[in-house]
Amino acid sequence: MLAKRKIAKILAMEEYFNPIVIEAIKPTLEAGLYPVKANQGQLLHFGARILKDGHEELAGAILYRKLGSENPWQELLLGEPDWNGNRVASLVLPNEITILEFAVLAWVDPVATCLRDRQKTSDAGLDASEYDLELASLHAQTLPLRRFLKRHERSFIIEIGAKLASFSAWYEFFPRSETSDPKTHGTFKTSVAGLERAARLGFDVVYLPPIHPIGLTKRKGKNNAISAKEGEPGSPWAIGSEAGGHKAIHQELGSEEDFRVFVSEAKRLGLAVALDFAIQCSPDHPYVSKKPHWFRYSVDGIIKTAENPPKKYEDIYPLNFHCEDWQALWNELKSIVLHWIGFGVTIFRVDNPHTKPFSFWQWLIAEVKREHPEVIFLAEAFTRPSIMQYLAKLGFDQSYTYFTWKNTKHELEEYLTELTKSEMKDYYRGNFFTNTPDILSEYLQEGGRAAFAIRLILAATLSPVYGLYAGYELAENQPVHAGSEEYLDSEKYQIKPRDWSQSTELTGLCQKLNSIRRAHSALQDMHNLEFCPTDNAELIAYRKQNLLCVINLDPHNAQSGSVSLPLSSLGLDLSSSYQLTDLLTGEKYTWHGDQNFVHLDPARQVAHLFSIDRQ
Amino acid sequence: MLAKRKIAKILAMEEYFNPIVIEAIKPTLEAGLYPVKANQGQLLHFGARILKDGHEELAGAILYRKLGSENPWQELLLGEPDWNGNRVASLVLPNEITILEFAVLAWVDPVATCLRDRQKTSDAGLDASEYDLELASLHAQTLPLRRFLKRHERSFIIEIGAKLASFSAWYEFFPRSETSDPKTHGTFKTSVAGLERAARLGFDVVYLPPIHPIGLTKRKGKNNAISAKEGEPGSPWAIGSEAGGHKAIHQELGSEEDFRVFVSEAKRLGLAVALDFAIQCSPDHPYVSKKPHWFRYSVDGIIKTAENPPKKYEDIYPLNFHCEDWQALWNELKSIVLHWIGFGVTIFRVDNPHTKPFSFWQWLIAEVKREHPEVIFLAEAFTRPSIMQYLAKLGFDQSYTYFTWKNTKHELEEYLTELTKSEMKDYYRGNFFTNTPDILSEYLQEGGRAAFAIRLILAATLSPVYGLYAGYELAENQPVHAGSEEYLDSEKYQIKPRDWSQSTELTGLCQKLNSIRRAHSALQDMHNLEFCPTDNAELIAYRKQNLLCVINLDPHNAQSGSVSLPLSSLGLDLSSSYQLTDLLTGEKYTWHGDQNFVHLDPARQVAHLFSIDRQ
Repeated sequence: MLAKRKIAKILAMEEYFNPIVIEAIKPTLEAGLYPVKANQGQLLHFGARILKDGHEELAGAILYRKLGSENPWQELLLGEPDWNGNRVASLVLPNEITILEFAVLAWVDPVATCLRDRQKTSDAGLDASEYDLELASLHAQTLPLRRFLKRHERSFIIEIGAKLASFSAWYEFFPRSETSDPKTHGTFKTSVAGLERAARLGFDVVYLPPIHPIGLTKRKGKNNAISAKEGEPGSPWAIGSEAGGHKAIHQELGSEEDFRVFVSEAKRLGLAVALDFAIQCSPDHPYVSKKPHWFRYSVDGIIKTAENPPKKYEDIYPLNFHCEDWQALWNELKSIVLHWIGFGVTIFRVDNPHTKPFSFWQWLIAEVKREHPEVIFLAEAFTRPSIMQYLAKLGFDQSYTYFTWKNTKHELEEYLTELTKSEMKDYYRGNFFTNTPDILSEYLQEGGRAAFAIRLILAATLSPVYGLYAGYELAENQPVHAGSEEYLDSEKYQIKPRDWSQSTELTGLCQKLNSIRRAHSALQDMHNLEFCPTDNAELIAYRKQNLLCVINLDPHNAQSGSVSLPLSSLGLDLSSSYQLTDLLTGEKYTWHGDQNFVHLDPARQVAHLFSIDRQ
Repeated sequence: MLAKRKIAKILAMEEYFNPIVIEAIKPTLEAGLYPVKANQGQLLHFGARILKDGHEELAGAILYRKLGSENPWQELLLGEPDWNGNRVASLVLPNEITILEFAVLAWVDPVATCLRDRQKTSDAGLDASEYDLELASLHAQTLPLRRFLKRHERSFIIEIGAKLASFSAWYEFFPRSETSDPKTHGTFKTSVAGLERAARLGFDVVYLPPIHPIGLTKRKGKNNAISAKEGEPGSPWAIGSEAGGHKAIHQELGSEEDFRVFVSEAKRLGLAVALDFAIQCSPDHPYVSKKPHWFRYSVDGIIKTAENPPKKYEDIYPLNFHCEDWQALWNELKSIVLHWIGFGVTIFRVDNPHTKPFSFWQWLIAEVKREHPEVIFLAEAFTRPSIMQYLAKLGFDQSYTYFTWKNTKHELEEYLTELTKSEMKDYYRGNFFTNTPDILSEYLQEGGRAAFAIRLILAATLSPVYGLYAGYELAENQPVHAGSEEYLDSEKYQIKPRDWSQSTELTGLCQKLNSIRRAHSALQDMHNLEFCPTDNAELIAYRKQNLLCVINLDPHNAQSGSVSLPLSSLGLDLSSSYQLTDLLTGEKYTWHGDQNFVHLDPARQVAHLFSIDRQ
């Protein structure tokens, strides 16, 4: 604050006494305005630059403790500086959900200064006895001597999240489709089969679209037809009917008790249940009649539908977050989240958070986490980078990404470099979905089963958090029409039973990948990603610790080329050979030097996922 | 502060009501901790990112006024956003030394939103009458309507400095050498010749080494000999003798009255006088006897000399800025600066500021500028980048740079890009000295007169602030020994008369460059620099508006090659020819297209400084 107050000319002379400067503190986000996110057990690297005039030996430390704790600060010494005065210190974070506060301390070390000067003087063959006297005088004082001790005026926050926030594989399915007959509505009871499938495939989280009563008014029909035919189930995102709103369960799915059993069955199978939190109302939602003042009205007194002019979405009424009764509305929305937490749900995938006020989310997430720090919020926003980033800054634990549309080597390298090396690494946890009920990418539509394998391997190995939407393992790839990313006969508007009896190459791949992810901590970290050059634009290669992934991005043709490995980073030397085991096939390879040849034919194998073994 | 306080869980619900986000505010330095520096009359670009959920039309403005003013804020509307919500606004800064404070305001514009939606709806051939109703309702309210008006919680500071801080050519000379005989000490009276020379060459500032009494004890002899012989004048940086200290004038230079006349003579010639502020004392300085407690002592009670073990500088005692009586010491040092301001001196070149406490400078500069905002402080620190940068952040108006050691095209392009495009552009004003009494670069030692011309043109055209140390125009290039950057027979330790009677190519070049700098505002701006590619590593080319400088960096050989010009930026098209005038020679050239051939032979001409004229 020195400089700022200096300008206002109100700083007392005493405040200039301390000569130490502390700057470039890491990790911080916008000078401490927002917390940094970290993971349980993560090796976190702190940094600070400590400067002072002259040549004295400086030292510094990170002070940290749990936020709000009355315990003494713990001290982590910063290491030796680089030429510019930058120092680092690393800390293994605790294996718990908590919030740490940290500050930076710096001081002059007169003993170290004296010892160094004595050494330099005697090394030069000169009389160093004056330093002996000085040392004696210093030792007569209390140790450790910290002269000009200074604490940086700001403190900074690190949120250590739930384990699943930083490492989890997600499986999205529609409970109503867990049936063998499109005319029979699946239920929470029949959906235990979906849980078992997800568990067998090795997933950690099952994510369900909204489970609430579906409106009848303006209900959409099959393939998003403007109106539903008799008996069509409608979209689960048109929430609310006479039977209830966001706290009710769609009666065809079962009872509250059935949902409780479903959640506990999931837990038994090692799965967490994620619900969709979509703040919007069908015209039949009880709020419309009971809380009409929570909606927006046209000048002519009609409730406003969702709109992005000239488009209008007549089956959905958005809430007016800034109505006069806003505090009651916000508290009601909070009570919805708490309601489902009461059923054992700890993860909320938030639908289109960018169409509701950011400050509402900031408030809601803080309020919920105050009592339930284990809860995870995933932001489903596909919009401008600045808005997706801001949602993550304000508190969302995870965020959807542009991964789905990054297909070429250049696009993938550029985007992953941003996620893992820019400031985003400190607050943005991307959840790499291969597909969603809204996104069947052109690459998947065109590329056949190989494309599905390629994108699955990319998602599961590039990011510790990834997911797929059911049907992916069956390589479903028919769009509603050419040029659309919507599925044909989208499950959003109809019940869609599938034949899950046969296992496919993709189910096997999925099982393997999830099993490998659990066995190899390298795949549980987002920031350890290093791309390796190849001489073929269709071959992408990247390394996470001792794992090397090489993928043929061309789903149609065999590709080959040379992969460059940074041998010294791997503790290998240029002259010796080393063995690699392909974790996907079990095959072993012997490589030599830093350039090795790879050939990948999508008809046989789209990728290697090597473990590199030192000899 | 939302996020920070959110974590501490003390934020009232009301504070979350406003849905607008303001971030990425520019220009700012470390979130407002330090002021940004700007120049009089500069076109300053402000920026801010304004975000909100949904699709409403947003708007924003920069609020600014003089710091401390009671006048209403002036409002500068931010322009249309880019895709990410970033907006800019530009302001021509006033032609005065002042401090501006600015803040950012943002709001929803419901009228613009309604007009846009009506347009989109009617463009789609749909009924837009509901928007007419809404507009009527909005117009019934008070205009301009600013919904959700939000002001960012921080305000930021911009210091508009003295004109010479951002645009000036400096000439350094030793008054004692303004004599025809090495045995006769030059005086302020004889130094009027130096002033006239500087004025004739077109300089704006004359900078003098310390003008105070020189100590006798441990006085250094010619070529830095460990002890001076009888009659040797010693180094002006060994300040203080029985005759006085930092407020006294070395009696061989003249009286206080002589100095007053010298300063007013300089003013008459359009020159500002810069003094050296070197905070150190010779063993004979009056402080040593009168203020012994201002120094440091060894354990055995002897005053500590300056040291960087194992080296000791026995002719110099550093002051102890943290002695018990520190406030009196700091105030005494401040009174020295005020003393010379009383003589009309407005520029202080601070000797080795990085060996004195940074917070002392922060205090001193603030204190002096409070009463004398026109004063300029130049930091003479050649050290680590972080420290040179920090001195500029804390308040130094100008800083020495690494320019002297940047010789190759790559080095120059990289360094100038840092100075003009990185955060440094907002606070670091580099003063490009071609040489100093301490720095005769290897390039100058080896390259002959062509090297001197090359470095002079680089300094004068790359940076609006540059300087040279007298003797440069005579191409003095003899080092004290091979491998040293010290001059042979350095003027630091002896009187050095020169024959100024003949004009040389370099004096002519210097005159021309200073005259061109005054005539062309393009050369008065640091940040408008754009490098132009050439196909020869020895040819560097850069553009400032319509001026194009092409220099052969090889002082020994003719070089030729092709220079690429961004024609569209210059308002030229590929197919037409255009004329260039070499401002150094007056010769005219006709170029065609974006690639043109240049040949520069150092025996004849080391550079072109073209003015590009549209046809």
